[in-house]
Amino acid sequence: MSGALDGAVDAENPDVESPAAAPDMAASLATAHAHEIAAAVRAGTVPARAVLEASLARIAALEPQVNAFTDLTLARARAKADAIDAARAEGRELGRLAGVPFAVKNLFDIAGLATRAGSKINRDLPPAQADATLVARLEAADAVLVGGLNMGEYAYDFTGENAHDGPSRNPHHLGHMSGGSSGGSGAAVAAGEVPLALGSDTNGSIRVPSALCGIFGLKPTFGRLSRARTFPFVSALDHLGPFARCPTDLALAYDAMQGEDPDDPSLIPRPYAPVGPRLGEGRDGLRIAVAGGYFRTKGMPDCFAAVDAAAAALGADRIVEIPEAARARAAAYVITAAEGAALHAGRLSARPGDFDPAVRDRLIAGLAIPAAWVIAAQRFRRHFRLTMLKLFEEVDVILAPATPCRAPELGQKTFVLDGETLLVRPNLGLFTQPISFIGLPVAAVPVWLDDGLPLGVQVIAPPWREDLALEVAHALAEAGVARAPVAQL
Amino acid sequence: MSGALDGAVDAENPDVESPAAAPDMAASLATAHAHEIAAAVRAGTVPARAVLEASLARIAALEPQVNAFTDLTLARARAKADAIDAARAEGRELGRLAGVPFAVKNLFDIAGLATRAGSKINRDLPPAQADATLVARLEAADAVLVGGLNMGEYAYDFTGENAHDGPSRNPHHLGHMSGGSSGGSGAAVAAGEVPLALGSDTNGSIRVPSALCGIFGLKPTFGRLSRARTFPFVSALDHLGPFARCPTDLALAYDAMQGEDPDDPSLIPRPYAPVGPRLGEGRDGLRIAVAGGYFRTKGMPDCFAAVDAAAAALGADRIVEIPEAARARAAAYVITAAEGAALHAGRLSARPGDFDPAVRDRLIAGLAIPAAWVIAAQRFRRHFRLTMLKLFEEVDVILAPATPCRAPELGQKTFVLDGETLLVRPNLGLFTQPISFIGLPVAAVPVWLDDGLPLGVQVIAPPWREDLALEVAHALAEAGVARAPVAQL
Repeated sequence: MSGALDGAVDAENPDVESPAAAPDMAASLATAHAHEIAAAVRAGTVPARAVLEASLARIAALEPQVNAFTDLTLARARAKADAIDAARAEGRELGRLAGVPFAVKNLFDIAGLATRAGSKINRDLPPAQADATLVARLEAADAVLVGGLNMGEYAYDFTGENAHDGPSRNPHHLGHMSGGSSGGSGAAVAAGEVPLALGSDTNGSIRVPSALCGIFGLKPTFGRLSRARTFPFVSALDHLGPFARCPTDLALAYDAMQGEDPDDPSLIPRPYAPVGPRLGEGRDGLRIAVAGGYFRTKGMPDCFAAVDAAAAALGADRIVEIPEAARARAAAYVITAAEGAALHAGRLSARPGDFDPAVRDRLIAGLAIPAAWVIAAQRFRRHFRLTMLKLFEEVDVILAPATPCRAPELGQKTFVLDGETLLVRPNLGLFTQPISFIGLPVAAVPVWLDDGLPLGVQVIAPPWREDLALEVAHALAEAGVARAPVAQL
Repeated sequence: MSGALDGAVDAENPDVESPAAAPDMAASLATAHAHEIAAAVRAGTVPARAVLEASLARIAALEPQVNAFTDLTLARARAKADAIDAARAEGRELGRLAGVPFAVKNLFDIAGLATRAGSKINRDLPPAQADATLVARLEAADAVLVGGLNMGEYAYDFTGENAHDGPSRNPHHLGHMSGGSSGGSGAAVAAGEVPLALGSDTNGSIRVPSALCGIFGLKPTFGRLSRARTFPFVSALDHLGPFARCPTDLALAYDAMQGEDPDDPSLIPRPYAPVGPRLGEGRDGLRIAVAGGYFRTKGMPDCFAAVDAAAAALGADRIVEIPEAARARAAAYVITAAEGAALHAGRLSARPGDFDPAVRDRLIAGLAIPAAWVIAAQRFRRHFRLTMLKLFEEVDVILAPATPCRAPELGQKTFVLDGETLLVRPNLGLFTQPISFIGLPVAAVPVWLDDGLPLGVQVIAPPWREDLALEVAHALAEAGVARAPVAQL
């Protein structure tokens, strides 16, 4: 990246490579990586306000096509950027994300906005009193919130479509899905509107849009990051995490968001060490395997080819079987449907006509699920977790496809997998669902096999080892197998 | 207690008062308190074998009437008693429960026996390989296991009746219920067959038989005592605990059973201090209140009179409202029915004819409960727990009735409470169910208002404060309001 950020070198990340040169200053500011922007702003090479305006200009130019945003927080963003520049002028040390524009899936509370969670109904809620903890943490590191992002209604979605707001569109091919439910997060980052976004992942909602939009995403271990002041879906399965166009940015954001939070009693306290400063150091000797069986069937050949390309780059020639993965997915499915239905039961009876029909019908079906099924699913979950922990005694990281195919077309209802015609909406997550079911950390890594749309690879690590997932993602980026080019729009 | 144990003074409990003199040596040995027996055996005044034989003789004499036992472990018990006596002869220090005969609800694993859990079906299970942790802990303190006790099938019961084994009978009136589901535990202790028994309490199954049989029982805090190698009912609600004829014995047993157990991952680790040595020291300044509202309606007048007698003895004149207690009971009911159904779904379809019909029909109904109801009940549970913790900022101990009435007659299907005809089986636990729902520790204390059958009072403490519940039970025993005479049989 020559141009606007030229000469900006992050003292703590001196070796980070720059993206291709951008045609003009505004574009290069807007499409730079988060760590590059932060380095430039911290060094005083570029004002935070200039970065912000470049981002806002790109958002204004592209949103009519991409539709990633549902809310812009312009005044707040400009005030924050100006405050950062003022602090710099006073000689104060800036945060590690200084001047980095970011946006969040609209289920994160943003003070002053109703937290819509992709719905029409929630727009009638009173405005949030305070930001979600993770929003506050990123801003505490001097990142700049620019708005809320489009998402599948109440996060029950893998498509990125939304009956109320219209679909967020895949920036690499506007006629195709962004993936859901964090579709706006994936689209905004892939379009270069912001270098960093937050989303949520219950059954795959970070990993699916990462794969379909060709960017990097991190679903941390269940219980790792605070969920305070976010709208839930399935409390036992909900994870929050970042999207970016390189693993370095994921680590930077992840490091800024960690730590205890008295506002989230479901957080699981664990010792924490920053991942970013060590990225690139821990790859040697890692035992990396490819998931076989379930994770080699019911997908289009391309998705396995993407995994194989990643495995080849890493020298990973071992196949491991994840036993009972199909049952794990079924169990996650049952728990999700029942918990989602219970969460929305009141709204389903009070305002059925105001739901996205595709979501409403799944939720109503969920109301009929017998408790005994859910209890059996939870029992199986404990068993499956122990099985996976055992597997991780033999391997450090497991590779699997993120989605069974490239981004489907907008409005596409079915696809054919292994000769079977299946619904797109629930089945885009068939490879992600068994993994989040037991809360394992996963980095989603974009792989481009040709000039067409990208594919995603899941880099799956044992509980609390986000560092391993990011390390392997970083190795794949260095090897050139994983990359997240800004969409040409 | 003069006679057989004469001169036996426990050095650590010198002030404990003795029960009335027994007519002959065997009877007095059999009907002595656990702490008296242990003191005598430790001092060498009485051999453990003599205590055991007295207990076995009383069991043999009374079982045709009482029907508390389903299994006797005679050879094992005699070998253990002889080993204790041999150790004493060698000058070795004996355990705190030396020579104390005890028996356990037949859902505790006893090595070599199939763990029947009150059922016919489970008799076909292979014999248990090892004792339940709590059985092993009591024997490690030199108590002597004499057998397994009758119980309501699969613990889904408040009556003490059992279609396969016949009812355990109330020793104070053989035509009346012992209470369930730990009916055999209550009956064996009230009959003076053993001074100590173990049971389980999911919704009241320790407190109800304690009340109906006129003895003391302790339901510890949820997560306090190991459940390893016991047959479950509702994992989120199951508690194990002791029955005895005085609070000192409850404390002695409770102290012997505590501590970490790698075999029970559901155990909640907490610091632990023995309660027994301090019993009688901590009563001053306790803020004791009587539960109002829900806990003053739907009961026969006697049950409130028993609470009032206890309150008067303690000088407690404050009434506290436990808000939403009826909802708490309903929520516990829904969770119990659904979890129980899920646990037994396989058996219900494979061997429906081998269930106790009264239990089977409730379990089948439980299979139809929607998951959304259970999820809503669990959500309410978290809310109710916080409400109760708040209440315990103002009071230390709460008194409430244990049952809405004295022991009903065997076979009695309905009773009239507040003018409403209700089923006996589910409604005997209407005052216990809201309390166990959030795992609060409770001592059940027997109160005799007249020459008729006894009534029970719940002494409810905040989480992890079993010491407070036992302290108040001890104070009531010292005041003569609570007492547990051996049944005249």
